[in-house]
Amino acid sequence: CDYDGPAMKTQVPGPRSQELTKQLGEIQNVGAVNFFCNYNESRGNYLVDVDGNRMLDLYTQISSIPLGYNHPALIKLMAHPDNLSTIVNRPALGILPPGNFPEKLMESLLSVAPSGMTRVQTMACGSCSNENAYKAMFIWYRNKERGHNTPSAEDLSSCMVNQVCERTLTNHHLGPGCPDLSILSFMGGFHGRTLGCLATTHSKAIHKVDVPSLDWPIAPFPKLKYPLEEFARENAQEEARCLEEAEDQIVKWRHKGKPVAGIVIEPIQAEGGDNHASPEFFKSLRNIARKHGCAFHVDEVQTGGGCTGKFWAHEHWGMDDPGDIVSFSKKLLTGGFYHKNELQADQPYRIFNTWMGDPSKNLFLTEVLNVIRTENLLEEVTRSGKALLNGLYELQTQYPGILSRARGQGTFCAIDVCDDATRTSIILKARNKGVVLGGCGDRSIRFRPALVFKEYHVHLFLNIFNDVLAQH
Amino acid sequence: CDYDGPAMKTQVPGPRSQELTKQLGEIQNVGAVNFFCNYNESRGNYLVDVDGNRMLDLYTQISSIPLGYNHPALIKLMAHPDNLSTIVNRPALGILPPGNFPEKLMESLLSVAPSGMTRVQTMACGSCSNENAYKAMFIWYRNKERGHNTPSAEDLSSCMVNQVCERTLTNHHLGPGCPDLSILSFMGGFHGRTLGCLATTHSKAIHKVDVPSLDWPIAPFPKLKYPLEEFARENAQEEARCLEEAEDQIVKWRHKGKPVAGIVIEPIQAEGGDNHASPEFFKSLRNIARKHGCAFHVDEVQTGGGCTGKFWAHEHWGMDDPGDIVSFSKKLLTGGFYHKNELQADQPYRIFNTWMGDPSKNLFLTEVLNVIRTENLLEEVTRSGKALLNGLYELQTQYPGILSRARGQGTFCAIDVCDDATRTSIILKARNKGVVLGGCGDRSIRFRPALVFKEYHVHLFLNIFNDVLAQH
Ligand code: FES
Repeated sequence: CDYDGPAMKTQVPGPRSQELTKQLGEIQNVGAVNFFCNYNESRGNYLVDVDGNRMLDLYTQISSIPLGYNHPALIKLMAHPDNLSTIVNRPALGILPPGNFPEKLMESLLSVAPSGMTRVQTMACGSCSNENAYKAMFIWYRNKERGHNTPSAEDLSSCMVNQVCERTLTNHHLGPGCPDLSILSFMGGFHGRTLGCLATTHSKAIHKVDVPSLDWPIAPFPKLKYPLEEFARENAQEEARCLEEAEDQIVKWRHKGKPVAGIVIEPIQAEGGDNHASPEFFKSLRNIARKHGCAFHVDEVQTGGGCTGKFWAHEHWGMDDPGDIVSFSKKLLTGGFYHKNELQADQPYRIFNTWMGDPSKNLFLTEVLNVIRTENLLEEVTRSGKALLNGLYELQTQYPGILSRARGQGTFCAIDVCDDATRTSIILKARNKGVVLGGCGDRSIRFRPALVFKEYHVHLFLNIFNDVLAQH
Repeated sequence: CDYDGPAMKTQVPGPRSQELTKQLGEIQNVGAVNFFCNYNESRGNYLVDVDGNRMLDLYTQISSIPLGYNHPALIKLMAHPDNLSTIVNRPALGILPPGNFPEKLMESLLSVAPSGMTRVQTMACGSCSNENAYKAMFIWYRNKERGHNTPSAEDLSSCMVNQVCERTLTNHHLGPGCPDLSILSFMGGFHGRTLGCLATTHSKAIHKVDVPSLDWPIAPFPKLKYPLEEFARENAQEEARCLEEAEDQIVKWRHKGKPVAGIVIEPIQAEGGDNHASPEFFKSLRNIARKHGCAFHVDEVQTGGGCTGKFWAHEHWGMDDPGDIVSFSKKLLTGGFYHKNELQADQPYRIFNTWMGDPSKNLFLTEVLNVIRTENLLEEVTRSGKALLNGLYELQTQYPGILSRARGQGTFCAIDVCDDATRTSIILKARNKGVVLGGCGDRSIRFRPALVFKEYHVHLFLNIFNDVLAQH
C-alpha cells in the first residue's frame, strides 16, 4: 500500500494543475493553492497530483492525515453496510445520537483520554473545538465567581438582547450577562481563525489584519536556543522571564476588570514557527494558572495524535494533571475537547450546535487508533523522528549558511532557513524533486509526515533534501 | 424506501434510550438528548429509535436532512469506488484540492447560486460560514475605507502582536490593524454560537449568558401579525418602525466610531421563533445597506435548500440583487457562503482554515440536487406546505385556546402554543404517538420535515396532532 519512491513527470504545478487553478480562480481566491491532487492514486506517504507526479508527503494536508493516503483499513471500513448509514445520515449528535455513540466514544476518544480527564465533547474542527472550550472556561469561571451555577435574572436579561436593547439600544452586550472575561494567549500562538480563536492567535499579521478583536492579554512565548540540551541555562532564564510576564498579565488584566478565565497554549507552537518549551515551563505555567484560578487549556490540535512519539505532546511533560481542557482536531479526524468534570457546562444548550461533530469521523478515528496500536506506530514515530532529527543536525552542520536551529519531538520536526526567499526556493525545488514540505513561522520548514513514515522514508527524504541544498 | 406510518412500542425515551443516556451522561452533558436512534433502520420520513419506535420526523436533525434517511441515491453513491477515496482522504481544500473540485463546485453549489453571485467558498458548518462571511465583510469594508487593498505597515504591525505587545503590553488588538468595525444584527436572530457569530445571535439567553461579547448594534425585527395578508397595514407600520431603527443604529454606531461593515439577517428568523417579514421589508433593508455602504449578508443556514418551496428563501423577495453574501449549511450538507466579486478577499490565507469544507459532503450535495430536480421536490414542498399550513389554520380555529399564529412558507411552518409548558407537553405527547417535532422561540412549534415529505405525510401528521390537541 505504499509506492517505492517519488516519480516526477512535470514541474509542479504541472500543466493540468495550472489549468484547474485557472478554473477554480473563477470561483474562489486560489492564491494558496499549491497544486491539484489525484487522491484515488495517492497511497501511504505518497501524494499523487493531477499531472501524474508522485511525491513523498511530509506535510500531509497541514498535518491532518494520520495513516497516509487510502489506508486499506479505512477503505475496508467503508465496505461494512452498517457504516454506510453512519456516513449518509449525519445526526444532530447533541439531541439524537446513534445508539452506538457512547460505545464508540469509549472505544475511540476515551481510550486515549489525557490524564485526569474523563469527559469529552466532540466538535467538527479545531476552531469550534477551541471556541467551545473557551466558552466552557468562561461559564466555569462565572460559576466560580457567583459561587453557584445559576445565572441571575439580571445576568439573563442583560445578555438577552430583546429586553435590554429595546430599553437602551446601547451596551446591551456589556451587561453582567456578557461579562468582561479574557483568555490569556501567547505571542506566536495559533488557535484558529474564527473571531474568538483569532483573538488568541498571534502568528501572522495577514490572519488578523482588518478583523475586529477583543482586548485580551498576551504573554511572550519563550524564544529558546536549540538543541535545547546545549543551552539549558539560557533557556531556563528565557522561560523564567516569560512566566513572570504571564503572571504579570494575569494580575494586570484582573485589575483592568477583565479577569483571565483561562490560559490557552500549544505544547509546541506550530503555525508560529515550531517553538518548543521545556516540561518545567509548562509545569510552572500550570501552577500559575492554578494559583490565579484560571483554567489551563492545552491546544493539541496540531500536536495531538501521535506525531511527537506520544499520543499527546503534553505527555512529554510527565504530569498527572496536565490541564483542565485539551482540544484536538486534524489527525484525530473529528474535532473536540476533553475536560475535567468541573468544566462541564451545567445546563444543556450552552455548549451546543447542530451537528456537534460527525460520527462518520469517529468511525474512522476508531480504526486509526486500532492501527496505531497494532502497528506500534508511536514507536515507529519515535524511531523515524530520531533519524530525521539526526539527519537535520548533520545537514545544518554541512550547510551552516543555510540551515540552523533543527529541533523536534518525534517526527514533529522543523529547521530554520537563512531567509524567507531561500525557504520558498528550497520548498519549491524539493517539490520538483518529489518531496512536499510546508513552512511555518517567518523562515522555518516544518516536517509533518504521517504516522506511517518509516526510517526508510526518512533517508529517502534526506537524500533529496541534501541534493536541493547542494544546489544552493 | 419509506415506511407506511409510525409504529410505537414504548414511551419515548424507551428503556434502551434511558440506559444509553445514563451511559453518555458519564461522558457529556446529556440534558439536550431526546432519545437514541437507530439510523440503520430509519428510512425516508421515519426516524427509528433504539427501542424500535418508528416516528414520522418533522424536525429532521434540526432541519439538516434534505432527502430523509438512507435515501437510496445517497447509499448508491457510496458504492462507487472513486467515492471511497473522497471520503477516506479529507484534503486541505485551500492548498491541495482534488482534481474534480472545480467541476464538482460547478455541478453542485454554483448550479444553485443566488442571483448576482458567481463565487462560493466552502466551509464546514453554519458557524464557520458566518464567521468567515463576517471577516470577508470586514476586509471589504477596510479596503473601501483605505481606497486600496493593501493594509499599511501600521495596520500590519498593530495587529501583529509580537511587536506591539512587546512594546506596550496593552491594547495590542485595538490598533488600526484590528479596527473597531461592527455587524448589525436583529433581535431574535440566530447566526451561530462561536464568539463572532454569538455577538449577532439574540434568540435565547442561555446561548449567550456568561460569554464575553462585542459591542455591536442590534435592531428590532418586525413582530408581525398572522396571517400576513390579513394584517397588511399594521404589519407594514411595524416593518417601517424596524427599518427606521435599523438605519438609526447604523448612523449611531458610525458616530460611536464603530461603523457597521455589514448587516446580517435571516429571511425567516428560525431559532428565534419563525418570524417572517415581507419582501418589501427586505428590499428596503437592502437599500439601507446600499445607502450606508454596508454589505448585506443573508443567512440561509436554516432557510436554504428548498424547504420554503424555493431553493433559497430570499428568492421569494423577487430581487435580482438580493445581497452581497449568502451563507448556508444544514440541508446543503456542506457549509459555505456565496459572495459577489467585490467581497473576494484579495490575498490568500485571509479566509482560510485547514479543511475549508469537506469534499465528501459536496459529493452528497451533488446527488441531493439531482434528486431535487428529477423528483421535482420544490413543487412537492410547495404542495405539501400548502396542505400543512391549511391544516394548521383549521386546527387553530378548532383549538383557539391552545394554538395561534400559524404561519409558513413551503413546509417551513410554525404555530404558537398558549404557553411554554403546554408546548412541551404537546411535543412529548406527539412523540409518544409517533411524531417528532421541535420548538423554537418562546412558545412556537416549528415544522421542518425533509423535502420528501408528501401530502400523504401531512395528513398523517395532522391526524395525530389533532388527537394530541383533542386530549388537551
Ligand atoms: S467552526 Fe468548526 S466546523 Fe465550523
